[in-house]
Amino acid sequence: MAEPSFTLRTPDDDSLPRKICDSCGFVAYDNPKIVVGSVVRHEGRILLCRRAIEPRRGFWTIPAGYLELNETPEDGARREAKEEAEAELEIERLLAVYSVPRISQVQLIYRARLRSPHFAAGPESLDVRLFDPAEIPLEELAFPSVHWALGHDFEAETGAAPVPFSNPPGESGNRMPNGRPVAHEES
Amino acid sequence: MAEPSFTLRTPDDDSLPRKICDSCGFVAYDNPKIVVGSVVRHEGRILLCRRAIEPRRGFWTIPAGYLELNETPEDGARREAKEEAEAELEIERLLAVYSVPRISQVQLIYRARLRSPHFAAGPESLDVRLFDPAEIPLEELAFPSVHWALGHDFEAETGAAPVPFSNPPGESGNRMPNGRPVAHEES
Repeated sequence: MAEPSFTLRTPDDDSLPRKICDSCGFVAYDNPKIVVGSVVRHEGRILLCRRAIEPRRGFWTIPAGYLELNETPEDGARREAKEEAEAELEIERLLAVYSVPRISQVQLIYRARLRSPHFAAGPESLDVRLFDPAEIPLEELAFPSVHWALGHDFEAETGAAPVPFSNPPGESGNRMPNGRPVAHEES
Repeated sequence: MAEPSFTLRTPDDDSLPRKICDSCGFVAYDNPKIVVGSVVRHEGRILLCRRAIEPRRGFWTIPAGYLELNETPEDGARREAKEEAEAELEIERLLAVYSVPRISQVQLIYRARLRSPHFAAGPESLDVRLFDPAEIPLEELAFPSVHWALGHDFEAETGAAPVPFSNPPGESGNRMPNGRPVAHEES
């Protein structure tokens, strides 16, 4: 089997260069990625995971990762907390939307609570702990957006907490307001 | 050149099946896509575009489309309005975050205003018009999320407008709070 080999050029029906396979012409569209994560509270303390993987191995982060296909952001945030911290979450609401264009990421960060006191390090974590807010290791946080999310969560905790709109209750974009189903390729 | 041919199987270091090229082993990760769009107001009226492309050709929609690599969502929303409606936008704020898991979309919808009264149909639009709210063709809107966004925009117009947090002013995730740059692969 040959090694993957792609050339960057602009397809006829497009306006930007894309990665095109040299052997079969497959167009590998690179799209921005969606990260979903949660600031998780339990009895006034905040759950953080010490990363077992690069980048930033050994640094502390909130449970977060890439949204999968056909997954709601809330389901993705719950899955990541389960995988990284063996934690079962009760999602409260969307806290923040961040963008990191340098690495083509959009991050959706939720506020959440532990459904039970159980948690433990999953395969991508060296350690998982609950921190009193004053004890959070600020110099050992993994990413800028972890700082932002913790800061915004503290603001939200004071009650000055703005929230965005999201899907109407019970709606997942599969039907028009008149009840008619939408076709598969439509949003 | 051969035709692209992919088989769905789970890579060794992964937990879900992915599309893998039969000839070179390239793993084509399918990720959820980010749609960015705007509810655009001008002197109390709302800008809508009549779609010139499928799906839902001939139906009305807000200017919206896929976020590109290394683009902020706000820049993407401005670009889409420029492409579809030749409109220059002043983005006011994030209005809503929707998810359509059936088609693996997350949509970030902004409130915006026209910077000038100029607009015209771009190549993906048959027509672009400003509608008085009472005149919006509700039976001819393209997608459920267009209904949601217009409804939420009306709620926002009444002043009961919740907003989410987003990046701190001037920050794009390129440096830690202590000013140190983050490495390229980090968020």
